[in-house]
Amino acid sequence: MTRFSLSLLATAALAATAHADEGMWMPKQLPQIAKSLKAGGLTMDPAKLKDLTEFPMGAVVSLGGCTASFVSPQGLAVTNHHCAYGSIQYNSKPDRDLLKNGFYAATLADELPAAPGSRMWVTVDLKDVSAEILNAKTLALTGKARTDAIEATEKTLVAACEADSGHRCNVYAFFGGLQYQLIKQLEIRDVRLVHAPATGVGLFGGDADNWVWPRHTGDYSYYRAYVGPDGKPADFSKDNKPYQPRHHLKMASSPLNSGDFVMVAGYPGRTNRHRLPTEVDFAFGWQQPAQAKAMGEAIDLIKAETAGRRDGEIKMAARMQGLQNYYKNLQGQQQSYDGSDILARKTAEFDKLKAWVNGSPERKARYGADVAATESLLAERQAIARAEYLGSFITPSLLNSARQLYLVAQERAKPDAERKSGYQDRDLPRLRAAQQQLDRRYDEQTDKRLVAHFMAQYLAQPANTLNPAWVDLFGLKAGQDEASIRAQLDKVYAGSKLSDSAFRMGWLDKDAAAFKASDDAFIKAAVALYDDDRRLENRDKELAGKLQKAYAGTQQALIDYHASRGEAVYADANSTLRISYGKVEGRNPGSDGSTWTPFTTLRGIVAKHRGPDEAGGEFNAPAEQLAAIKARNFGKYYVKSLDSVPVNFLSTLDTTGGNSGSPVLNKNAELVGLLFDGTLDAVISDWDFNPKMVRSISLDARYMLWQMSTVDKTTRLLDEMGVK
Amino acid sequence: MTRFSLSLLATAALAATAHADEGMWMPKQLPQIAKSLKAGGLTMDPAKLKDLTEFPMGAVVSLGGCTASFVSPQGLAVTNHHCAYGSIQYNSKPDRDLLKNGFYAATLADELPAAPGSRMWVTVDLKDVSAEILNAKTLALTGKARTDAIEATEKTLVAACEADSGHRCNVYAFFGGLQYQLIKQLEIRDVRLVHAPATGVGLFGGDADNWVWPRHTGDYSYYRAYVGPDGKPADFSKDNKPYQPRHHLKMASSPLNSGDFVMVAGYPGRTNRHRLPTEVDFAFGWQQPAQAKAMGEAIDLIKAETAGRRDGEIKMAARMQGLQNYYKNLQGQQQSYDGSDILARKTAEFDKLKAWVNGSPERKARYGADVAATESLLAERQAIARAEYLGSFITPSLLNSARQLYLVAQERAKPDAERKSGYQDRDLPRLRAAQQQLDRRYDEQTDKRLVAHFMAQYLAQPANTLNPAWVDLFGLKAGQDEASIRAQLDKVYAGSKLSDSAFRMGWLDKDAAAFKASDDAFIKAAVALYDDDRRLENRDKELAGKLQKAYAGTQQALIDYHASRGEAVYADANSTLRISYGKVEGRNPGSDGSTWTPFTTLRGIVAKHRGPDEAGGEFNAPAEQLAAIKARNFGKYYVKSLDSVPVNFLSTLDTTGGNSGSPVLNKNAELVGLLFDGTLDAVISDWDFNPKMVRSISLDARYMLWQMSTVDKTTRLLDEMGVK
Repeated sequence: MTRFSLSLLATAALAATAHADEGMWMPKQLPQIAKSLKAGGLTMDPAKLKDLTEFPMGAVVSLGGCTASFVSPQGLAVTNHHCAYGSIQYNSKPDRDLLKNGFYAATLADELPAAPGSRMWVTVDLKDVSAEILNAKTLALTGKARTDAIEATEKTLVAACEADSGHRCNVYAFFGGLQYQLIKQLEIRDVRLVHAPATGVGLFGGDADNWVWPRHTGDYSYYRAYVGPDGKPADFSKDNKPYQPRHHLKMASSPLNSGDFVMVAGYPGRTNRHRLPTEVDFAFGWQQPAQAKAMGEAIDLIKAETAGRRDGEIKMAARMQGLQNYYKNLQGQQQSYDGSDILARKTAEFDKLKAWVNGSPERKARYGADVAATESLLAERQAIARAEYLGSFITPSLLNSARQLYLVAQERAKPDAERKSGYQDRDLPRLRAAQQQLDRRYDEQTDKRLVAHFMAQYLAQPANTLNPAWVDLFGLKAGQDEASIRAQLDKVYAGSKLSDSAFRMGWLDKDAAAFKASDDAFIKAAVALYDDDRRLENRDKELAGKLQKAYAGTQQALIDYHASRGEAVYADANSTLRISYGKVEGRNPGSDGSTWTPFTTLRGIVAKHRGPDEAGGEFNAPAEQLAAIKARNFGKYYVKSLDSVPVNFLSTLDTTGGNSGSPVLNKNAELVGLLFDGTLDAVISDWDFNPKMVRSISLDARYMLWQMSTVDKTTRLLDEMGVK
Repeated sequence: MTRFSLSLLATAALAATAHADEGMWMPKQLPQIAKSLKAGGLTMDPAKLKDLTEFPMGAVVSLGGCTASFVSPQGLAVTNHHCAYGSIQYNSKPDRDLLKNGFYAATLADELPAAPGSRMWVTVDLKDVSAEILNAKTLALTGKARTDAIEATEKTLVAACEADSGHRCNVYAFFGGLQYQLIKQLEIRDVRLVHAPATGVGLFGGDADNWVWPRHTGDYSYYRAYVGPDGKPADFSKDNKPYQPRHHLKMASSPLNSGDFVMVAGYPGRTNRHRLPTEVDFAFGWQQPAQAKAMGEAIDLIKAETAGRRDGEIKMAARMQGLQNYYKNLQGQQQSYDGSDILARKTAEFDKLKAWVNGSPERKARYGADVAATESLLAERQAIARAEYLGSFITPSLLNSARQLYLVAQERAKPDAERKSGYQDRDLPRLRAAQQQLDRRYDEQTDKRLVAHFMAQYLAQPANTLNPAWVDLFGLKAGQDEASIRAQLDKVYAGSKLSDSAFRMGWLDKDAAAFKASDDAFIKAAVALYDDDRRLENRDKELAGKLQKAYAGTQQALIDYHASRGEAVYADANSTLRISYGKVEGRNPGSDGSTWTPFTTLRGIVAKHRGPDEAGGEFNAPAEQLAAIKARNFGKYYVKSLDSVPVNFLSTLDTTGGNSGSPVLNKNAELVGLLFDGTLDAVISDWDFNPKMVRSISLDARYMLWQMSTVDKTTRLLDEMGVK
């Protein structure tokens, strides 16, 4: 289901030359594209888009993996239904099934706390810190020492930045570690669920329609940001008040048509458009197929273990949604890749780069060693990935939990600045929330089945490739079958009380000695794994330090090579705020046997509707909605050329995972839709952009407003948003 | 799954004025449309299409509910996979799953008997017998007497015609009983299954894609006709030889393109394009929704009762396929009907007809009484339909069987010519086959569940509307709940041995006295129901006789009214041989959010493929096929403009249920495809033809030949068909 949210997506970043409409632009690059924006029809001054604290960028916030935007002066924010899915799930129980029925808080007091750890981040500043991170001392180091030095500087910069309370700061790498930016964000910690339509609207089409056009999904939900009585970020409290953003988006005052200019501001996660050929080959030749195979098996097992148990199903729903989404994404990528010339082209491009590097003694001296080293270091990293790819699948959830708790205890014994990244005081609330969420996401029966299944696969590998720390952990041996693994796991699970919430949370405050003295099965296992975990961590840091040096050098060569040809490059997506622009446009060819027109309508909902019992209930529009369509209660959202209300639309916007929920703006920077998906036959665009094929799918705001006003009658919100 | 086969579709016939490309033309009408055929591009003399014993009509055969065509001089016939489904299912067992894996007879000796009762009928003659049927004596009668007189004449005509052994003759009514034709067909009784692709080809897309475009179904299978050593139709025997048809179709020698002329010859079942408004209102206002509701419940119950039991699933497969298909068809019709102006238009048209009738004393005298009577008689018939619509759902399969067996015994006691239609000597082989098929189609667990479920619904109706014969039958009472009905049914089922094949077949030779003496629970029930069954039959005959007179008069008024305006009419489809013509053409709009292009390709199979475990296994292309596509082994079936092999195509051909398997011919009368479906948003065309919306879906012969040659390697058949 979830589409363009960033739950599980890939890694680092390179540089690309841009096609028309290609590009996820950093705010500082806006002067470079101002001309195109004006030519497209943008009525405001493009220079204003550069200012993160001004309109409209000040209204765009990150949810971490998704994007949202403020739509009222009282902190009301709209995002995708699938982005709020975790919070809807968290508040659902078998007798109060918000996933199925939707949710509408009739008053402020009825708004529900979002899932633990939910945050809204408003970007308030960004600063290039490349010179600080890559200072002379660091540049003289290699391996683990270099990784440690970079991390230490990052921590120092972050600590200074976060001295301004209520903010969260992070250092982001661009161009694979060639450049760094320190990004400062206001961190709103009290986020509440305000409204979500029924699954039959918000998830209409379900997995069957995921990544598919024509599409008819009402993929929207509303959160509200709350702050303390002093107006500053605060933990949840009933005394908190709605946050008042400096800016919010207004609904479009003119209709959106085919060919119209649109732009999108959001937090795209990762693109890989200029990866080295060896990375492309590894990703599609081994890694992604192996991941997809394991995921497919996990999906089947979860289905089987939760069948007929609505409680288990609800608990596994968010993980299932993430798995299905990524699984389908991987399949789509692979399908486009297989039989394509992508690897050949990437290889030819990289050969040209190498020829250019080798074309002058000066360039050879400057880049040669890094380019060569990058290729061999990547091979090293790939070998590790092959050996360890089942790791996340063979780890019981409670062991994961125990390892994290033990690490907290170990790190807390050190001064804050010396602690491992992710385990400083600033990180404790997030860690606490993660431990808490387990209550609503842990299903023992399913967990055990998954671990037993994949452990049998792991142990079926040649004995000399296995990690003894893992084999010994539960007293297993190479080649053991699933039934006997299962019998041993039964004992281990029975020997732990970590599924008890109070017991588990209690460990957050204990010291390492207490862990060592515990006889809880998973705490003991975490302690037993600790030394091996550190060994692997150090090995990875050693490799990362070498790779940072070499990869950054290779990136510099690529940028310089393109510059020598007069070509500009933009950094691949890396979860930082970006702007894309394009236009509303269908596609020809669409899918095999059709061409795509840019808008779908309410008619398509009626045509696809199958009721609760057919097609897995994925096409089950609410009766009230169908009645309103039948009665042609279209109101002011009627579009004559469509003879209906538009539901979803296609555009040429360049987007990827993380862009989910991003506001789509018209030429007047008014809200016309929410981005939520792409199409399966173009997900390969993360690696290889083809402007003829790439289309983003957005919810048309008119459908959302029609559903809210005509069917769900969410009058309070519409009033608040200024919708008459 | 099944699309345009005629398992369950509707009733009688009226007359229509034709749009461009609208019309299912009778062979005798070909001179009327010769000009259009020539203008379309037909190279042969259209007059030749009139001759049923000449090429190409001599190659087209009826399977009863589907159409097939000879494609070799050795009686090899091609039809749809879904038309051969019953035979594939009949030959399938859990350890030899032809449904799943497909079937290819490597030699003649390996060809398998088709399901019992399978026939091929080659139309050899047709004759207008209106004057004989509606002779002066009959025209003087009314009610049951009139029905009996018509039946008696029909039987006499049929008997005379069938004196030519090896032939089957039937009288068909046109224009609702205004005209009659005697149709003579060579009846081939030894039909064998030669080849069926795997379900992943023949049923690719399954129920999800049924009635859907874009489509990628390889909906073809091969039968062979066998005759005795003397060349005459014979029952199955290993001494039989392939039948040598006088004509067979040849594969197209030039590629089919968008815009090309196509025509289709086949046996469309029923259309209702000029039904009276009261019939339209009853069909969509009550009857079809009620049927759909019951069918939807039956589908769910069958799924639940056969889940995890492959044997039960195979036994119920053919019924399930029929139910799902018709259910989806009804839903599609209803969706188009609801909110449309169809009833208003039909009413306005009928009002005009009535005004014309009342416009002159002469016309009023001639038609007035019939028109008025038709409306009231239809109301009477509708009331009966309402009261009895659950009848087929509350009858245990073995009771149905017992009733038929008892009727055979009762009728056999009379001279052949006096027996009830359908129970003469000529009908015994068909009745025997039906009894035999039960072995492969009866699943007690499912049967009992269905009967209990619907019996509870039946008994929930007001007590005074129930038929006492049925209530008393199993000792039930009004208002009884499902659980207690179930308990009583358990006893009844346990008290019958009719599920035993030898026991059941033995009753075909027993007399009525033996039935009366039997203590088998279902035989007893059949005997108990006999008098009431006859009462209802006589009631229906009384009504039918009145209705024939009135309806025929109303039809005559309609024809004369149109003639007065210079408009020609064609008879609605009635399972007799017809020809439609049109062209290869996409559609705009297609589905909501897309337009349709006329061809799909192998690329779409790859894009839709989901493997055996996802989407109910409905999109599970065979690995060998996917490999051949990936390797671009397209051979001579490659079409440059599509950069692939065409799979299915759209055309403007006017077709309906019964046309399934019909050969689609190009301008040179060569085979270019097999018709197999329409689209759900246009199934209302059976009632209301809209040329902008109506498209037929055909298998492209190039896909079939590519799959047979490249993937399935059915060399023997390709050689036989002259494919190099």
